[in-house]
Amino acid sequence: MRVALAQLNFTVGDLQANTDRILRCAQQASEQGADITVFPELSICGYPPLDLVTAAGFREANETQLQRLAKESASLHTGLVVGYCGEANESGKAANCLACLHRGSIVSSQRKLLLPTYDVFDEARYFQPGDRPAVWEFKGQRIGLTICEDAWNDKQFWERSRYSRDPVEELAGRGIDLLVNISASPYHVGRRRFRLSMFKALAARHKVPAALVNQVGGNDQLIFDGSSFIVDGSGTLQARARSFAEDLVCWEPGSASEAPDDAWTDGSNADDTEAVYDALVLGTRDYVRKCGFNTAIIGMSGGIDSALTTVIATEALGASNVTGVAMPGPHSSEGSLLDARRTAEAMGIRFLTIGINPAYQAFEEQLAPAFEGLAPNIAEENLQARLRGTTLMALSNKFDGLVLTTGNKSELAVGYCTIYGDMCGGLAVISDVPKTLAYKLARVANQRHPGGIPQSVLDKPPSAELRPDQKDSDSLPPYEVLDPILQLYVEECLTAPEIAERLGHSLEMVREVARMVDRNEYKRQQAAPGLRVTSKAFGMGRRFPIAQRYVR
Amino acid sequence: MRVALAQLNFTVGDLQANTDRILRCAQQASEQGADITVFPELSICGYPPLDLVTAAGFREANETQLQRLAKESASLHTGLVVGYCGEANESGKAANCLACLHRGSIVSSQRKLLLPTYDVFDEARYFQPGDRPAVWEFKGQRIGLTICEDAWNDKQFWERSRYSRDPVEELAGRGIDLLVNISASPYHVGRRRFRLSMFKALAARHKVPAALVNQVGGNDQLIFDGSSFIVDGSGTLQARARSFAEDLVCWEPGSASEAPDDAWTDGSNADDTEAVYDALVLGTRDYVRKCGFNTAIIGMSGGIDSALTTVIATEALGASNVTGVAMPGPHSSEGSLLDARRTAEAMGIRFLTIGINPAYQAFEEQLAPAFEGLAPNIAEENLQARLRGTTLMALSNKFDGLVLTTGNKSELAVGYCTIYGDMCGGLAVISDVPKTLAYKLARVANQRHPGGIPQSVLDKPPSAELRPDQKDSDSLPPYEVLDPILQLYVEECLTAPEIAERLGHSLEMVREVARMVDRNEYKRQQAAPGLRVTSKAFGMGRRFPIAQRYVR
Repeated sequence: MRVALAQLNFTVGDLQANTDRILRCAQQASEQGADITVFPELSICGYPPLDLVTAAGFREANETQLQRLAKESASLHTGLVVGYCGEANESGKAANCLACLHRGSIVSSQRKLLLPTYDVFDEARYFQPGDRPAVWEFKGQRIGLTICEDAWNDKQFWERSRYSRDPVEELAGRGIDLLVNISASPYHVGRRRFRLSMFKALAARHKVPAALVNQVGGNDQLIFDGSSFIVDGSGTLQARARSFAEDLVCWEPGSASEAPDDAWTDGSNADDTEAVYDALVLGTRDYVRKCGFNTAIIGMSGGIDSALTTVIATEALGASNVTGVAMPGPHSSEGSLLDARRTAEAMGIRFLTIGINPAYQAFEEQLAPAFEGLAPNIAEENLQARLRGTTLMALSNKFDGLVLTTGNKSELAVGYCTIYGDMCGGLAVISDVPKTLAYKLARVANQRHPGGIPQSVLDKPPSAELRPDQKDSDSLPPYEVLDPILQLYVEECLTAPEIAERLGHSLEMVREVARMVDRNEYKRQQAAPGLRVTSKAFGMGRRFPIAQRYVR
Repeated sequence: MRVALAQLNFTVGDLQANTDRILRCAQQASEQGADITVFPELSICGYPPLDLVTAAGFREANETQLQRLAKESASLHTGLVVGYCGEANESGKAANCLACLHRGSIVSSQRKLLLPTYDVFDEARYFQPGDRPAVWEFKGQRIGLTICEDAWNDKQFWERSRYSRDPVEELAGRGIDLLVNISASPYHVGRRRFRLSMFKALAARHKVPAALVNQVGGNDQLIFDGSSFIVDGSGTLQARARSFAEDLVCWEPGSASEAPDDAWTDGSNADDTEAVYDALVLGTRDYVRKCGFNTAIIGMSGGIDSALTTVIATEALGASNVTGVAMPGPHSSEGSLLDARRTAEAMGIRFLTIGINPAYQAFEEQLAPAFEGLAPNIAEENLQARLRGTTLMALSNKFDGLVLTTGNKSELAVGYCTIYGDMCGGLAVISDVPKTLAYKLARVANQRHPGGIPQSVLDKPPSAELRPDQKDSDSLPPYEVLDPILQLYVEECLTAPEIAERLGHSLEMVREVARMVDRNEYKRQQAAPGLRVTSKAFGMGRRFPIAQRYVR
């Protein structure tokens, strides 16, 4: 049986276009002799549809497209496995469904059994679970069918079970020749290796070939890396699809392996930084385009964050679609303006310089009566950032380009950013990238786009340039110290005393960092959606109260 | 058995202070002869704690405070029923728990069985459910114990069951003399009546007195109204606590009823508007104070929304803690400035006038080269709003006051608001108030604070005053037409064709409104937290993708 992994990029809610895309790919797979072509989870509607599934019409429209797909694929050699949002009649809820189509009919369908409800997933909110995993008897083979999380509860692989059932074990116990898993599993660092190692273990344990087909593409905060694969019954990788791009890969049990050679498949993590870079390019391209924009606008300070964002955006959208804007103010250095221009020139994008000093002076005068007798403080610093944000938004409104924000995760964590200032924008490209990772990404960026991030940018100490001779290190520990603390506090959810002990820092310093993280929750709840690349990003997967007093 | 309903206002995560508050109230109830004193759901940590519960230390700290509470209440006559966040050892998850304390010991504890996972609730994300509701045999009585949702699945009351079990029926089947329900049930219009009617039905069906004790107070977007009550075994209301304030109410089965007389308890809805007003005052006061602020800053346009917000904020915080700021720009009318001043004077608050014309002109010049040859559009309109937002934030940064935004739900729904402009602020006081409801609330406001909202404000047609002679009705249907459409689209989740048919409008017009709602999702995801008063608010309880194409 020749199996095709059809790894496609869907737009959430674009049911007709997604179905057209499935159909075209099924035709192509059929021409390549596929017996069965497997598409990702919720392929007809795209993942995650969120509250769209609460509308009865949305479920009906999914069913309509599924019927059309069955009918229009009637003449194909290949059978199809697709995901769609169905109806769970007894509860009034939706169901996350899989259907098997062949020769014009829907020959089997089932609901997802295990509904992830943690981190970025809220499936218990949306879906009614199924009760029994299905086996599709097709062309003499018994195919065990699972949807994403259904395969994520192997008792031997996991230290701790999240669910009482293991659908894969149930299917294996009933006897299957192939395990199929349709997925929408978002990317974060190391996730590709993890998924593969889990499926190698599953396949070897149950002695059955296993195919995982993952969605690819960016949908709001989530980036799906694809990286679909098939392992044989000994747990050996046999074929794999590309990461961060659509792909169609065929494989037949018993045939020669395609000998995949990417580093991520062999357990090393040499290319993790490149993968993050690729993820950000894909996430940026998809967010901008799926929102209906063609062009992006970026405020360029001359620092590493905005340079990196510019290189990523240019790779994602093309140089003719990106505008960089330098906005020198009262404390901007000549060097920074020059650095911003260098990046713009290296990338070949449009570059504007719009100074904010006249507006800043107008504001100083306008506020003088109210501020009389009071010393300059954060108000004047934030004012500069807000005048820049307002400038970018005026350009956005005039030229219909999406503003990309340039803040990194370290800043967003401790609130070293100005709400309604540098936080203005439709997408936060690197808001899940710690500052130390930004430097690593800059190397990848420069390999691909020489001169994109000038050496002077990499060499100079980070500064917001909002007061004379300001350095980030005036207010924050060095990023090499800060980032590991943040990683343990935000991603691992450790307490300040635990972190101080593990890293050998003073409790006082760690507590101060933790306090900064906690008290800046209000800024993050008004931040632009940010592309997720770590195991715990700010945004939809991390939900803390603003008005709260607990000290970790 | 004398039952005390202890309706308290907790700050999320302030475990020690919350426990102190419980202890003081228990002493008071004991002095009043209570045999049993019942506190709300998750009383020790406050509701909703969200991702705080994922930290093991948080659960441990809850247990520590519970032990302290047991010990320190050892000498009291009364037994205690309290809520806390416990540990569900087998899963590594938290549990939403109830404990019964008496004479220094924890004599019984149980987990919530039914975990709401819809709208603003995500309990399946946070908690492991219990398996059996407990009966506490205390002072010769059998007390059936439930936590909030546990009592929300009566098959006779609901048309459709959300869960397979009904813990109340299970308890009644085992024989109980009193049903206790500890709750954190947020307010929205009509919710008080609904809760009471449900408990009347439960009590009558099972022929057992039933006490519901609800949390009171604002925690971020949610306002808990309190409105705790006890009904006897015939389903007759016997005693009730106040709405929107702390209270302690005692009642003994068989004793004379306190004859509650509020309109909400008798099925009429005469006071719904007053309740919304009270809810907003409480929500504003609690958000500002629980965030550690004392003062608020409000941009006053001279329109009804900012006037209403000012009156609510002044009632919440006191006149000396509120600053109103008029910021006349190129298209502001004299009348509007005068109207803003009138409200400020009537309320006795500090009033500043800071014109934005010089800053606006500086921006026009600064942008002139980039904008050369292009006609004025939304860019110039939004610029005015953003200069006002920047002005307010400068005052916030200088004087440490929280900026309150003044936009209503109708505007937020269709995107008739400027992101980083009038959307700047820490709390959106009336962002769940449709414009037509704002007019009704203005009447309540004026009854309590004569002259707070001048007649001229109520009489003039709504205008953003961002271009000459602009009226809201230039871009939008009249609010009397718009609001019912939005109610069906946003709250009831109907499709455009369904709405057009139900309201007798053209499909084209309804589609355009729906399109505006959908395409402005990006603004709402960066909006300030808004106080919820309807059955479906924008914010935590409504989750739609931004980059999506589905047309309802």
